[in-house]
Amino acid sequence: MSERKPRIAVDMDEVIADPISKFIQLYNRDYGIPLDLKIHPGNEVYHHVPEHAKMKLWEYINEKGFFRDLDVMPDSVEVLRALQDKYEVFIVSAAMEFPNSLQDKHEWLADHFPFIGWQNIIFCGLKIVNVDIIIDDRIKNFKDFNGRKLLYSSPHNLLLTDYERVNNWKEVAEKLL
Amino acid sequence: MSERKPRIAVDMDEVIADPISKFIQLYNRDYGIPLDLKIHPGNEVYHHVPEHAKMKLWEYINEKGFFRDLDVMPDSVEVLRALQDKYEVFIVSAAMEFPNSLQDKHEWLADHFPFIGWQNIIFCGLKIVNVDIIIDDRIKNFKDFNGRKLLYSSPHNLLLTDYERVNNWKEVAEKLL
Repeated sequence: MSERKPRIAVDMDEVIADPISKFIQLYNRDYGIPLDLKIHPGNEVYHHVPEHAKMKLWEYINEKGFFRDLDVMPDSVEVLRALQDKYEVFIVSAAMEFPNSLQDKHEWLADHFPFIGWQNIIFCGLKIVNVDIIIDDRIKNFKDFNGRKLLYSSPHNLLLTDYERVNNWKEVAEKLL
Repeated sequence: MSERKPRIAVDMDEVIADPISKFIQLYNRDYGIPLDLKIHPGNEVYHHVPEHAKMKLWEYINEKGFFRDLDVMPDSVEVLRALQDKYEVFIVSAAMEFPNSLQDKHEWLADHFPFIGWQNIIFCGLKIVNVDIIIDDRIKNFKDFNGRKLLYSSPHNLLLTDYERVNNWKEVAEKLL
């Protein structure tokens, strides 16, 4: 049996794609009130939104098009491309929670990460993937996973201390390249 | 750690969904020549199509809508529902090869298998899933998999002899329930 490269599963939202900026932009458009741009450590976006507007965030994320034009996280393209030399890189997104995101996410990946082939893209619910390393901002995706877990910093996870953390893609490169 | 139910990965095309009948229907519509309804053992559908028409099959499968109204394989609904008592059932489809299929397949599953939640649906390329049993008609999806492999009979795989085979969903039920 041939030796295979170690496999990395890379999450999309808040790791290579930036939905938080999009939330803020839509919220400002609809309410004319700037959402606090600095989400407090430990908070989700919805913690910064008044009660009557919380459902609006849910509507945004379920709308067709929400995921189509998200900003790309800085340096993620270059680092993922470089990781491919040493690793088998998979994009693993829990896209099934938002069925309207499937096509958007696929097209977004084709635009920004054309070097990731269809064989290496996984849209799922539970992340039951057989890989060696996971890069993710949600610790629920580390559950039952015995490989190396890199917690990608996002406001909501900043208070967690029990995980190996990466704050940006330059740090991922330092650790894995 | 709580004991979890064994996990089954169930393929879609030619296992719970019937793309072959759809191919035949479209081919007859466009050419007026009935395609041999009995695909010979070991053959793919394209083996039964003249050279000049082979590209047409590729067009069909890439067209939006192709996967939306496929027939459901007999007894698959009842057996999958029953399997859920004893197993964690995942639908695992290599849908990424046909990006236009993503939404169609999602809606098709919601129609016919509404009891499979979003957490348990995986659209991927390579099937690098961490499960105990795979039910699939393509042996390429058994590669590097150490669990129990059930080869679901389809014309193209009928000459293969090295695998535990299931010919229909009643046989799956007999083996797994």
